[in-house]
Amino acid sequence: MRPRLDVWFTEEHAPGLRFSMRVTHELVRRRSDYQEIAVLETQEFGKVLILDGYLMVTEKDEFIYHEMIVHVPLAVHPDIRRVLVIGGGDGGAVRELVRYDTIEEIDLVDIDPDVIDVCEAWLPQLAEKLRDPRVTIHFADGVRFMRQVSRPYDLIIIDSTDPFGPGEGLFTREFYGSCHAGLTEDGILINQHESLFYDEYRVAMRRVHDRLGRLFPVARVYQAHIPTYPSGHWLFGFSSKRYDPLLDLDAEGWLARGIRTNYYNPELHRGAFALPNYIRRELEGDRQARLK
Amino acid sequence: MRPRLDVWFTEEHAPGLRFSMRVTHELVRRRSDYQEIAVLETQEFGKVLILDGYLMVTEKDEFIYHEMIVHVPLAVHPDIRRVLVIGGGDGGAVRELVRYDTIEEIDLVDIDPDVIDVCEAWLPQLAEKLRDPRVTIHFADGVRFMRQVSRPYDLIIIDSTDPFGPGEGLFTREFYGSCHAGLTEDGILINQHESLFYDEYRVAMRRVHDRLGRLFPVARVYQAHIPTYPSGHWLFGFSSKRYDPLLDLDAEGWLARGIRTNYYNPELHRGAFALPNYIRRELEGDRQARLK
Repeated sequence: MRPRLDVWFTEEHAPGLRFSMRVTHELVRRRSDYQEIAVLETQEFGKVLILDGYLMVTEKDEFIYHEMIVHVPLAVHPDIRRVLVIGGGDGGAVRELVRYDTIEEIDLVDIDPDVIDVCEAWLPQLAEKLRDPRVTIHFADGVRFMRQVSRPYDLIIIDSTDPFGPGEGLFTREFYGSCHAGLTEDGILINQHESLFYDEYRVAMRRVHDRLGRLFPVARVYQAHIPTYPSGHWLFGFSSKRYDPLLDLDAEGWLARGIRTNYYNPELHRGAFALPNYIRRELEGDRQARLK
Repeated sequence: MRPRLDVWFTEEHAPGLRFSMRVTHELVRRRSDYQEIAVLETQEFGKVLILDGYLMVTEKDEFIYHEMIVHVPLAVHPDIRRVLVIGGGDGGAVRELVRYDTIEEIDLVDIDPDVIDVCEAWLPQLAEKLRDPRVTIHFADGVRFMRQVSRPYDLIIIDSTDPFGPGEGLFTREFYGSCHAGLTEDGILINQHESLFYDEYRVAMRRVHDRLGRLFPVARVYQAHIPTYPSGHWLFGFSSKRYDPLLDLDAEGWLARGIRTNYYNPELHRGAFALPNYIRRELEGDRQARLK
């Protein structure tokens, strides 16, 4: 099992904190117009997709991330037909979405065709449903795409990379405003919200939460355990024009769909919104006094 | 900030997975009669306690572990007066326990006096309450101590190391039987339950869950996000002769105590018992068909 050639991929999760995986094969390494794309075979996590040196997904734990960005809104909104995924060229979000036969159209916007090529070639576990007839892939900048949306969506999922590099614009006030405008009157916006445990993104993510809270009547944050992401404690934003993620959760309806999941379930859905105090205080800022 | 002498502590969280912290000072390294004890100052996590090469606690995230092993049972059982902590020589569990003025006696059993010495000298944030007048420290083997308990406890917390080395006996059927016998008729047993994400302890921990389920009418598992432990997804066992961790949760009563916590709150308490499907299936084994 252990190769003689001892090769490691290392990501710095915080200054002075390294997370390293043993690499059994380098499958592909390519520079696209936007970023460096690599797929490595690792001992513990199977194949992993790395963009500009940052780990995006691993075969072993991608189910957690993708189930949590898709099934949470789908268990709340009773009639999601049109969905937009921004980023997500790996196909993991689409794979979960196409399990709902009530979804009629899925637009996927990714700036980088090479990400999709690489994932279709090397990560079929993720990309297998990108050719589903309901899916339309747009190679475009997410920010620009959102400015010209004419038919609104029931659900928008911002499946972005980190708040720097090609995905930077997907964390701005302007972009969130376009998302709000591009949603139906009962639409839901899901965004990946990074972790708040290390200092690096804490301030940026509090700002994101404030921005979404000014735009949407419902702006909540929920969590999942994702072992290969910094701190393992990952957050997502649930912003909505009408539906509340807990009051409007239709647990029985979701279970009746018979979708087998490895992480998500309706009880966990409720628990995912019960955040630790240090996160609540960080997100609430000055409203700390209200914290119970 | 970054020292010129670049020193790293590395723990292998799984085969082919390394978690490494930059060390700014080695504060102490000592071999006791039982294990090698070290305290390192790190860039990101402050001081960290390491036993036989395995990271035990860090100043930055120890609050999560210690709040979760103490406040969960204390918010459920209405009248906890006598508590036993097995292991836990760092003092973190005791520090949380002494915040309850209704607790009258705390016995701490740790096999290794050197752990307590080192923590009192180098980790006062953890050890500061070990001299509380309600605390009695017993330097003894936990398994032997439990065989001769005469007055039962309302709460026993197994704050053990991993299921090998000096703490190995704290995962056996005999030991859990002694704990059951050493509890009052409405007593609660809390044990640290490792993580199930990596293969290493998965089988051992399913066995632990089965053992506790045969002894106690209520045997549940709950979770927390602990960034420095393998996978970041840590489990605890809640075994009880009478109280259910959710049905008997007294959220208002707990909040009325006015204990300020950084991780725990009663909503999170409920969420902590809502486990991901892959954990539920693992713990339930053949009862998988019942899984919703």
